[in-house]
Amino acid sequence: MIPVEPIGVVRSPVTQTEVDEGWGAVESELVLAAPLAPGLAGLETFSHAIVVFWMTHAFDPARDLVRRPRGREDMPLLGIFAQRGKQRPNSIGVSVVEVLGVDGRVVRVRGLDAIDGTPILDLKPYVPAFDRATGARIPEWMDRLMERYFS
Amino acid sequence: MIPVEPIGVVRSPVTQTEVDEGWGAVESELVLAAPLAPGLAGLETFSHAIVVFWMTHAFDPARDLVRRPRGREDMPLLGIFAQRGKQRPNSIGVSVVEVLGVDGRVVRVRGLDAIDGTPILDLKPYVPAFDRATGARIPEWMDRLMERYFS
Repeated sequence: MIPVEPIGVVRSPVTQTEVDEGWGAVESELVLAAPLAPGLAGLETFSHAIVVFWMTHAFDPARDLVRRPRGREDMPLLGIFAQRGKQRPNSIGVSVVEVLGVDGRVVRVRGLDAIDGTPILDLKPYVPAFDRATGARIPEWMDRLMERYFS
Repeated sequence: MIPVEPIGVVRSPVTQTEVDEGWGAVESELVLAAPLAPGLAGLETFSHAIVVFWMTHAFDPARDLVRRPRGREDMPLLGIFAQRGKQRPNSIGVSVVEVLGVDGRVVRVRGLDAIDGTPILDLKPYVPAFDRATGARIPEWMDRLMERYFS
């Protein structure tokens, strides 16, 4: 077991995820532990960041290891490592967000698909040479699943 | 504290990171815990995946919270959350890799910048709608730093 201590917490107007759609316009704050504030120096020179967070969803192998995305009947049966669902062996989220501003220990971001109170595990600058796969291909069902996620 | 149990381990020909360059051609294996093998079903239909791993580097705030990337004098003084260095409060790596194949509980990948024995925390399909920031901007120093990282 690796003990991971959150570096901060998400403050978001979204407090529950009944419908997992419309995240693109959501503005939220990453509030870091005060002693870590100096670690934000320079983040404002990047347009985007990667937020690593803990989704606090329990994983039940019988239910979650192989399932249809969002339980939708029009989706194929898939392993959890071929999906982005929250019920994972380790409930870790990785999301790309826009950096709107940094002020003290608070980072304002747009597009973070994490609810209010979510523990933050790490924060990294988005670097295309690392993070942008050129020519990435995805299966057809994923396009259908993503239709309204950010819009 | 959140206890995180690794889902598997990296098998790589690279056993140490003296020089953090030339990762692009490295082929390695993600060996999952046997009970999780069914969770890989469908991953082979994606060209790329995101590997979340634990870098096992200790974080010393006095040394690492604000520092020059790789200790290079031609780099600016920056907070650790504006860098991709390994010495982070939580030493979590997030890397995009090519999926070469899936066989049982083993995923063959190309381009993973993690040494042999690295614990894997999560594995996700790479989905451009989530993971590709359009129009991402980075500061000038990052281009210089990345020159030989993957080539």
